[in-house]
Amino acid sequence: MAQRHPDPTDRAADAVPGEALAAYLRAQAMEFLRALRLHREGGPEGPVDAARALRRSARRISGSLHTFRPLLDTDWSEEIRPELAWLSGTLGLERAYEARLERLLLALHRLSGAAVLPEQAGVAAGRGAAGAAPVPGQPAPGRTAGATATAERGSLTVGAAKAGALLERQLTLARTRAHSTALQALGSARFHAVADKVAVLASEVPLTPAAPVTDLRPLAAAAEERLMDAVAALPLVTAGHPYNAEALVHGLSPDPSPHPQDGPWHQVRLLLRLHRYAREALLGAHCPAGARLLTAGQALDRHRDASEAAAAAAQAARTPRITPATAYALGVLHADQRHEVEAARFAFQQAWQKRTADAS
Amino acid sequence: MAQRHPDPTDRAADAVPGEALAAYLRAQAMEFLRALRLHREGGPEGPVDAARALRRSARRISGSLHTFRPLLDTDWSEEIRPELAWLSGTLGLERAYEARLERLLLALHRLSGAAVLPEQAGVAAGRGAAGAAPVPGQPAPGRTAGATATAERGSLTVGAAKAGALLERQLTLARTRAHSTALQALGSARFHAVADKVAVLASEVPLTPAAPVTDLRPLAAAAEERLMDAVAALPLVTAGHPYNAEALVHGLSPDPSPHPQDGPWHQVRLLLRLHRYAREALLGAHCPAGARLLTAGQALDRHRDASEAAAAAAQAARTPRITPATAYALGVLHADQRHEVEAARFAFQQAWQKRTADAS
Repeated sequence: MAQRHPDPTDRAADAVPGEALAAYLRAQAMEFLRALRLHREGGPEGPVDAARALRRSARRISGSLHTFRPLLDTDWSEEIRPELAWLSGTLGLERAYEARLERLLLALHRLSGAAVLPEQAGVAAGRGAAGAAPVPGQPAPGRTAGATATAERGSLTVGAAKAGALLERQLTLARTRAHSTALQALGSARFHAVADKVAVLASEVPLTPAAPVTDLRPLAAAAEERLMDAVAALPLVTAGHPYNAEALVHGLSPDPSPHPQDGPWHQVRLLLRLHRYAREALLGAHCPAGARLLTAGQALDRHRDASEAAAAAAQAARTPRITPATAYALGVLHADQRHEVEAARFAFQQAWQKRTADAS
Repeated sequence: MAQRHPDPTDRAADAVPGEALAAYLRAQAMEFLRALRLHREGGPEGPVDAARALRRSARRISGSLHTFRPLLDTDWSEEIRPELAWLSGTLGLERAYEARLERLLLALHRLSGAAVLPEQAGVAAGRGAAGAAPVPGQPAPGRTAGATATAERGSLTVGAAKAGALLERQLTLARTRAHSTALQALGSARFHAVADKVAVLASEVPLTPAAPVTDLRPLAAAAEERLMDAVAALPLVTAGHPYNAEALVHGLSPDPSPHPQDGPWHQVRLLLRLHRYAREALLGAHCPAGARLLTAGQALDRHRDASEAAAAAAQAARTPRITPATAYALGVLHADQRHEVEAARFAFQQAWQKRTADAS
């Protein structure tokens, strides 16, 4: 395995003891606690970074517990992992709905041949600011972006404008609900229990007795192996042929979402993340992943986003009593996003091919 | 010019006298008359080949008169060229509508994730048989294909099925009208006048006095130069980047058809054809064009077909009183065909790049 894809940094050439995992988990737990403090203090920039940092460390702790399962206390591991997944999922939903709406509105403008206006560009550029943790008493973030989009819809055709208004209504409602759910979650006893567990982790990692002197590399290699197997099962030859028209094959099939063909790609996205976290545990979190690996991961993020945006457009088209012009615009939009799905697969194939070429 | 793209056959290294043009025109006129005889005799295979052959030779005569204009009697040239264009256009319309319907119905099946059934495949494979010249007293060809498509629509979703039915109704109507128009044309005095002129051309080409000893190559090179200039003005860098999403930029713009961005590509398609015919006049019609040139031309044919199919889907979506499901399917179909437009541009860019690499 290591032969097939030797680490270019070559720092993993020596055995890495379990103690490195404990250090990594402690560091991630500290990050989690710092993000929590940031969130509680509030402030204008606070909530944004706080929510992102909370999810970031929760994902890394959860992923490491999965990859290095045999080295950790089983009961403790099995108790905290679903809680971290719940937290990460709950905090991520609002941001996901907001990003989906931005993506779809920008696509509608592009498809209308309308120049993207400065305000619109701001919406896109402001994406990073959209992961805000909900702050009690404040309106859900992103309202302004929505209002701007509404004002700019004058440059769209009637169908595109109506499609945009419909998507905005539906996804804003979903986002508002996600906002409330996240608020409730952050104030819940369940959340406090997770936070307490992470606080303990920051000082004391529940390793098994043999773990501190066990080499981490075989378990990290197994995680990479799972990734490689999943990538090998992807239709990469097809994906490497531009304009293969595969992603839209079920564009009009009765079942609108999500496309079953997307599943294996989503799976690879998760396995790639686990591989990256395992690599961090071995090499240190400060050691950045290779550019190819990051590019490949970004392509899969884009794949997931486009897949979900396409599904949202298809879903909106089944709203009762919409006009044919609205439905037509949603059909074009759906196909456009499925086209994006295909483009993301191509980008992943290219990045992966280069990565393999670099390693061999 | 010749340096930049030397002819790989290198047969044109010597001067080619105007007499070669006369021979070429005589040969094309003979082809025209043979096709006409075939058409008048009728028979099961006759009309198909006849219409195609009539258009084929009409295009070549007309194209050669354009490229080698200074070598031919001006009055005669200016009289016959528009008549040949009229004939070729009139005979081609029915076939174009039929091919467009086939393309759109096959795309609807593909987009529905439905396997293409043998009958459907037959429709596709039978494309070559669709260029039938209208035969008085016979129904318009292609009825059977239409009926089959209707029977197979059971495997489509309601929206796709209704979209297919709508397109079939509209394009069949257009095809039937084109059939009648072609019938009238073939029986008209105007057609007989063209046929008489071509009959004269078969024995006596109206060259200018100096033409027989004038070198054809400068005029052929000028035709190639016009092609090269038009290709140089195409956005080939963009086209060479897969998934550039350019072709759908006006997918929802108020003006539905045809996309202005397609114009320069259609123009290159015509100039490529003129270059090919000029090449035939110089090298002999039996000397096939290079594979790259043919591939490039086929990509532009596909570009034109997809562009027109996309416009037909957009047009159908503006039919009053259609359901939102129908409109949605037409939106997906429109975007799919615009995707095809983009794919065809990519294919052209690839073929052209290889051709240039071969030549340098």
